Amino acid sequence: MRALVLSAGLGTRFRSEKPKVMHNILGKPMLWHTLKTLKELGPLDVALVVGYGAEEVKSYFGEAYLYFHQSNPKGGTGDAVLSAIDFWRDYEDYLLVLNGDAPLVKAQTVKNMLRYLSLVEEYENTKLSALLLSTQLQDPTGYGRVIKDQEGNVLKVVEEKEASPEEKLVREINGGLYLFYCPHLLETLFMVTPSSRTGEVYLTEVFKLMHQQGYKVRSFMAEDPTEILGVNTRWELAMAENLIRLRILQGWAEKGNTIHQPESVWIEPDVVLEGDVEIYPQVMLRGSTKLGRGVVVGKGSLLENTIVEEGAVIEPYSVVRNSHIKKEAVVGPFAHIREGSLVGKRSHVGNFVEVKKSFLGEEVRAKHLSYIGDAVIEDEVNVGAGVVFANFDGKRKHQSYVGKGAFIGSNALIVAPIKLGSYSFVAGGSVITKDISEGDLAITRPKLRILKGKGREKLLD
Amino acid sequence: MRALVLSAGLGTRFRSEKPKVMHNILGKPMLWHTLKTLKELGPLDVALVVGYGAEEVKSYFGEAYLYFHQSNPKGGTGDAVLSAIDFWRDYEDYLLVLNGDAPLVKAQTVKNMLRYLSLVEEYENTKLSALLLSTQLQDPTGYGRVIKDQEGNVLKVVEEKEASPEEKLVREINGGLYLFYCPHLLETLFMVTPSSRTGEVYLTEVFKLMHQQGYKVRSFMAEDPTEILGVNTRWELAMAENLIRLRILQGWAEKGNTIHQPESVWIEPDVVLEGDVEIYPQVMLRGSTKLGRGVVVGKGSLLENTIVEEGAVIEPYSVVRNSHIKKEAVVGPFAHIREGSLVGKRSHVGNFVEVKKSFLGEEVRAKHLSYIGDAVIEDEVNVGAGVVFANFDGKRKHQSYVGKGAFIGSNALIVAPIKLGSYSFVAGGSVITKDISEGDLAITRPKLRILKGKGREKLLD
Amino acid sequence: MRALVLSAGLGTRFRSEKPKVMHNILGKPMLWHTLKTLKELGPLDVALVVGYGAEEVKSYFGEAYLYFHQSNPKGGTGDAVLSAIDFWRDYEDYLLVLNGDAPLVKAQTVKNMLRYLSLVEEYENTKLSALLLSTQLQDPTGYGRVIKDQEGNVLKVVEEKEASPEEKLVREINGGLYLFYCPHLLETLFMVTPSSRTGEVYLTEVFKLMHQQGYKVRSFMAEDPTEILGVNTRWELAMAENLIRLRILQGWAEKGNTIHQPESVWIEPDVVLEGDVEIYPQVMLRGSTKLGRGVVVGKGSLLENTIVEEGAVIEPYSVVRNSHIKKEAVVGPFAHIREGSLVGKRSHVGNFVEVKKSFLGEEVRAKHLSYIGDAVIEDEVNVGAGVVFANFDGKRKHQSYVGKGAFIGSNALIVAPIKLGSYSFVAGGSVITKDISEGDLAITRPKLRILKGKGREKLLD
Repeated sequence: MRALVLSAGLGTRFRSEKPKVMHNILGKPMLWHTLKTLKELGPLDVALVVGYGAEEVKSYFGEAYLYFHQSNPKGGTGDAVLSAIDFWRDYEDYLLVLNGDAPLVKAQTVKNMLRYLSLVEEYENTKLSALLLSTQLQDPTGYGRVIKDQEGNVLKVVEEKEASPEEKLVREINGGLYLFYCPHLLETLFMVTPSSRTGEVYLTEVFKLMHQQGYKVRSFMAEDPTEILGVNTRWELAMAENLIRLRILQGWAEKGNTIHQPESVWIEPDVVLEGDVEIYPQVMLRGSTKLGRGVVVGKGSLLENTIVEEGAVIEPYSVVRNSHIKKEAVVGPFAHIREGSLVGKRSHVGNFVEVKKSFLGEEVRAKHLSYIGDAVIEDEVNVGAGVVFANFDGKRKHQSYVGKGAFIGSNALIVAPIKLGSYSFVAGGSVITKDISEGDLAITRPKLRILKGKGREKLLD
Repeated sequence: MRALVLSAGLGTRFRSEKPKVMHNILGKPMLWHTLKTLKELGPLDVALVVGYGAEEVKSYFGEAYLYFHQSNPKGGTGDAVLSAIDFWRDYEDYLLVLNGDAPLVKAQTVKNMLRYLSLVEEYENTKLSALLLSTQLQDPTGYGRVIKDQEGNVLKVVEEKEASPEEKLVREINGGLYLFYCPHLLETLFMVTPSSRTGEVYLTEVFKLMHQQGYKVRSFMAEDPTEILGVNTRWELAMAENLIRLRILQGWAEKGNTIHQPESVWIEPDVVLEGDVEIYPQVMLRGSTKLGRGVVVGKGSLLENTIVEEGAVIEPYSVVRNSHIKKEAVVGPFAHIREGSLVGKRSHVGNFVEVKKSFLGEEVRAKHLSYIGDAVIEDEVNVGAGVVFANFDGKRKHQSYVGKGAFIGSNALIVAPIKLGSYSFVAGGSVITKDISEGDLAITRPKLRILKGKGREKLLD
Repeated sequence: MRALVLSAGLGTRFRSEKPKVMHNILGKPMLWHTLKTLKELGPLDVALVVGYGAEEVKSYFGEAYLYFHQSNPKGGTGDAVLSAIDFWRDYEDYLLVLNGDAPLVKAQTVKNMLRYLSLVEEYENTKLSALLLSTQLQDPTGYGRVIKDQEGNVLKVVEEKEASPEEKLVREINGGLYLFYCPHLLETLFMVTPSSRTGEVYLTEVFKLMHQQGYKVRSFMAEDPTEILGVNTRWELAMAENLIRLRILQGWAEKGNTIHQPESVWIEPDVVLEGDVEIYPQVMLRGSTKLGRGVVVGKGSLLENTIVEEGAVIEPYSVVRNSHIKKEAVVGPFAHIREGSLVGKRSHVGNFVEVKKSFLGEEVRAKHLSYIGDAVIEDEVNVGAGVVFANFDGKRKHQSYVGKGAFIGSNALIVAPIKLGSYSFVAGGSVITKDISEGDLAITRPKLRILKGKGREKLLD
């Protein structure tokens, strides 16, 4: 089988300069989701028909796909398939044609359609010229209706605007995904004339022509009507994103992870949960985040491209990006761990602490109101409240190093580049501008002066 | 047309001292939403029947409306309309009567009703005495049923409690919104007797009387049954708020803005999105907030009465109120920008930074753990981590000024009032108590003392 | 009546080492919710059949319950009831049998079933041998069907797998909750033979046997089909948690509290709202939290085991645990109040402030970027921005005391243990290492040095 993905649509109703299929669903272009479904079908030649924004599509998806260009942006779906005729003209098998803006179709459904083709061939001794995916709606208004004879053969598909009153009563609608036997498609698609109303060549016109040629066409009903949802507005984009999101969440829950208020949780498709993970409401997991067994992610935390090892706890309202949190570490609440950081085993990064491009060893404690930037902090260091690693001098960034077991008192300022030896002690409020050797205590502290009665005077008089 | 809004209800089931119609939906009283719908109908004389909490209603909505007082809080809807008899007694046209606690009715529905009145007048040569909005429910239990004859004329409306078994089977229910031809309303409303059971005068009794007088009454079916939802409990208030919220969100999405997890997002009715805005989950936009093209608002951020210009990014979990964020600025994550602040073009206010009543010029960087209060900060200033503008001396607030390109080192304290000249440099940890001239470096730093071996002693012995 | 709760299930599809019934719903084990329903029925002897993870169940629920051990984890429901035979063998009344993993059944439904038993006894002079809870589903696939005769007597319950095509059409399904007349249960349960397919003894087999013995069995239809939802996967756990959560939220709304976006709000079962409380989206209230009249909880805040008194305001994104917030206090946004703290009347704890095991008197202001740990702060104290109470010296924690009306300047460091007298004044940036007497001013401040032109040199050259 080959697959042709129609991705040239203008997406006018998106009101966007970006091509419609490049709008994101859970951090990936809509088209990525459609192509992922195709990947699940196994090895397959896939071609994309592109048009508006072709360069953006090609540069994202690269050389794994063939690209065909539809030159007339208003040519219609038939014209789109013709644009790629070199892809299927000589192919004597089935071509899967689907829309790039229909990201909800499931691979299993396509597999079931293929199996149906085989069964019909085997048991009815009939090679179908086309099999179209359909579904049944309570209210089919606005959709193309699938018109069939009493044996279930498709006679034609009619658009809402061209349907007769009887045809409008039909509740089986066209899902916009087709398997075509290429020789028959080739024969009939050239016979389609452009619509007198819109000038477009509709792919759906081939079904009537196939029937007239004596070929057999059938429809295949999707179990879940949401599968055929197309995305034509940003509201439909949001609805599609919600549906894909809930499928991902249900998958992880059924693999043995606890997800509270799943409708509030966001997990992107490349995230991995290793089991017994507990996700609280409003959590967002992005990119290639991976959570080890038993990890707990508190309410509202956002993790992106981050590895969290077994037994670590992310407290509520923490933001962690492009970092690595090791076993049994505790992060948050209200912690911000930025790119290129590592938080060691059983370490604790607490509230209103920012860590950037820093390495924290095991059992480090930085629990309150600190900024740790461009630093290496060895095991068992205590970083007091209000400590700042001043890594920027107005022109460039500098590194710091803190040895094992050191203690940095609260509100101390570490003016990088600096090296604090192991078991060194920085007294609270000190400004450290040179290296401190192992075991030494460093202090900058002016004399404490007391002005008798002066406090009361300033406050009450 | 004139419109009469019944807003005297006690709202007993709200269990509140505040009048029911003054309870908020998306930051505005429920009644505001009903009156907004009326405004969309075009210029219109609107009167409100008020009762419990009348003063609160009047003082909020002011002199744009006429007010009539219903003296008997248990008089019923008929009594409420009679309370305002001076508003419509001599009016020889249609009076729209609706409830203040039914904020979901759409203006288009009322327009459709008016059009229906005209069509009936034109084509059937009939002036309807009343047209009532109705809808059809699967389960009509609890609602008043619309009883019609075979020609579709309304014979009466019966309350659940007084309905016969056959009448209870009727699924068309009264929506509580009516257009009355005033002369016929005047004639019949005086004939209504108070209910023997409750003592209330029910407005719905007039339909039976109109029929008896030989007048014609029809019903008009709302397309969307949620339109007629009344709000009698705070749970129904939450449901109405959700429905209005989703309408607003769908509107902005269809105008070309991307909204993720819309069911988690809160956008109040006066907010404006200028297109291609991207809203992440759990965002809340309040008051007169206005977002320029391409603005991104990260997860969970709350903006109130704030202008954000084109291309600016609000990172997750930021709170910005009554402020102005200029082009391409970056705010957050975890930033708090308070009343009367301006963040200039390409400036960056980062995590755990509070800005209050301050002006920040272009390309200012205040990225970590700072408090900037009552300050003017010129272009290209760098505010280090842990910097505090001490604007309060125990008695009053003072202003500060920082000139272009100045550098304030981390953990420095700026004791207001102060003026730092352009390209001045405050060394980290310094306490600045007097003005610094242009280009000068200011430093308060006691000698760094090292106590050999004393650190290890404090930590390990 | 006695009640027997079947809680021995392996919960294989949960993929968990923890017994299924111990998985949490809103902070309490699933089984806790089932037992709470039983408590609402009045005084009742309750026994639990336990198996896998029995010790964990017993140690959580303690001695208020009788426990019976099902030794064969694959014995089936009939075997589970037999395991507890000592509990009901000699009981000549009704035994309620239900599943521990069905936390959605309402007490009112069981009361209605008991009333139905009485009515049948009184008016039909019939003692039912069993009454089973059922419901009607559009799609009953997968559930046991209730097969009845034309008089409505239950003939048997058949599992999906053993149902004939006609039986599969039955839409009334078994809800898994039963009232059994013990003498008849005893007689028939011993007659049940293990399934030849699975080896399990199915409790539902007794219905057929009862019918064969000439006993009468009826079914009782639950009004709300969600009541009979069993929890077999963590996805179903999430769905059950959502349903219980919405019931709790609707209850509080109808008692006169305003809850915005209730589907985003989490309120655990032991929380109390005293009325006119306003809850914004994404709020989470845990444990024994209690909110006084008129309290407002801003967007996203998390309160756990915390008392908030009348008129206090919790601003957005605050986390408060095991603490007490007094009248009209203001907390947040972005405040973190930890275990054992008290915030006094009209006090204000503001953004990026952490309070731990501290007492704050009335009208204390700690509005920005501070850490207050292990301190007693008397009335009217002002804690400046960036102030840290350094309570840890590398070895142990120390206490501090701040007298009434004292002023602690910004970025000051209070090195505990310390006592600041009332109306004492700590100058900004000072490091306080000894006690300050009442009314005195304390300052540590090195000389401010100005290096002419040196700033410009560092920044521009």
